[in-house]
Amino acid sequence: MFADTEFSGKHMILDIKEIKNKEFLIDFSKMMELLDQICDTHQFTVLQKVSHKFEPAGYTLLYLLSESHISIHTFPERDYIAFDIYTCRQYSSNRVYDEIHAYLVDILDAKYEAPRIIDRVF
Amino acid sequence: MFADTEFSGKHMILDIKEIKNKEFLIDFSKMMELLDQICDTHQFTVLQKVSHKFEPAGYTLLYLLSESHISIHTFPERDYIAFDIYTCRQYSSNRVYDEIHAYLVDILDAKYEAPRIIDRVF
Repeated sequence: MFADTEFSGKHMILDIKEIKNKEFLIDFSKMMELLDQICDTHQFTVLQKVSHKFEPAGYTLLYLLSESHISIHTFPERDYIAFDIYTCRQYSSNRVYDEIHAYLVDILDAKYEAPRIIDRVF
Repeated sequence: MFADTEFSGKHMILDIKEIKNKEFLIDFSKMMELLDQICDTHQFTVLQKVSHKFEPAGYTLLYLLSESHISIHTFPERDYIAFDIYTCRQYSSNRVYDEIHAYLVDILDAKYEAPRIIDRVF
């Protein structure tokens, strides 16, 4: 437990590997549904979304949240997604992020690895 | 030096503190000029930009790059910017990121702290 004033928020960095639900690697509208659901569940407010599809496959998706951002870069040829979420919420534990991580691993049918959660410091 | 196939890229996380050039904390068009210049210098291709200004002050700026992304969240009341750059380039050293960091600290007139540079792993 830390004083509210010391942290600008929490940042979770996920290298999501060995994804077996491969649709999510190529279909960003499917991923957007998933992200929208996560944002809804955890009351993150989505202000803007941008996406870009790369050739031959893979995409980038950025969500600008009123609580900060989510970024996704997919590498279909490697069954891998680089996922980041940073929120300025003053969470006193990693529980919400652990839940998001467990949910992503479950839905994507990916390898479980401990998430990397970083306290961003003012 | 690592094999190209092992890393999805490099991610630099900066908590930029004690910023004395305060214009950059509130004026995102000024920050965009700076980022455009950095992208130009290091040959990052900017595909899309989104920004949001918060009340009473501060903004978020997201750059979708063909090489991945840059995110910026400013906290004018704390003289602080949360800055991230992640590129999928297979740099064999941190030199480019060290240069970007040194340049930002110089232009923003901020406190120098060692950058946190993370190799993202497939």
